[in-house]
Amino acid sequence: MVQRLDMITLGVPDLDAARRFYVDGLGWTPTLDVPGEVVFIQVGHSRLLALFGAEDLAADIGGVSAETPRGGGVALAHNVGSDEEVAEVLATAERAGGTILKPAQRAFWGGEQGYFADPFGFVWEIAHNPGLVFAADGSVRFGG
Amino acid sequence: MVQRLDMITLGVPDLDAARRFYVDGLGWTPTLDVPGEVVFIQVGHSRLLALFGAEDLAADIGGVSAETPRGGGVALAHNVGSDEEVAEVLATAERAGGTILKPAQRAFWGGEQGYFADPFGFVWEIAHNPGLVFAADGSVRFGG
Repeated sequence: MVQRLDMITLGVPDLDAARRFYVDGLGWTPTLDVPGEVVFIQVGHSRLLALFGAEDLAADIGGVSAETPRGGGVALAHNVGSDEEVAEVLATAERAGGTILKPAQRAFWGGEQGYFADPFGFVWEIAHNPGLVFAADGSVRFGG
Repeated sequence: MVQRLDMITLGVPDLDAARRFYVDGLGWTPTLDVPGEVVFIQVGHSRLLALFGAEDLAADIGGVSAETPRGGGVALAHNVGSDEEVAEVLATAERAGGTILKPAQRAFWGGEQGYFADPFGFVWEIAHNPGLVFAADGSVRFGG
């Protein structure tokens, strides 16, 4: 597993309030804003902060409450280059002592995904998203 | 406040177990490993994952339990270039609707720091660390 963290997702109780804070308040510019669904903000070279409904995030992970300490509210994402690598990286994490929360499968957004928890419950998503491009110059874009 | 996330700190209940998982298990190479204190791992261009004791992290933030959902276990760091900017960015976050958890002050590691919570309790550290260098080529090093 390459040592790379590509996205940090905050599971927020109110997406509009989150947009008011991060976009209107801090003045940050979204890379992609889908009202009622999700807001992605590039927060440096080749990385994204995602604001996503807390219940939506918990449901996507499965079996994790939005109120769970260490992992209910935050998901760390590691993106890979193919569907096959999702299962491979999850297997590596399991051998290392992680717990599979969601085996590799089709994601609702069209790619392949799975989740594991580290030994303390911190949640990592392993994802292959062909529509999400991390370019060499550090820019990140959707629909590529 | 520049839209940048520089470091993700996981407050772990057992630092040795965390090292076994991330370093021995996943095979990641630390940038700086101080046994009994902290492990920093570079996880991409100009960003770090920090493994830090959960109680140490809660104490550093102040007033936040390691078991608090959304923020007890994870801190997101935004690094700035001077001591003065720490207070300035905290003031920006407060005006945007954030709550100051720790006003700008000297940090135990020698720099300047402060913490705020976003409207949902997600914790951000604003820090000026002269000993931590984020180079233009994406490398991150300590003692620079």
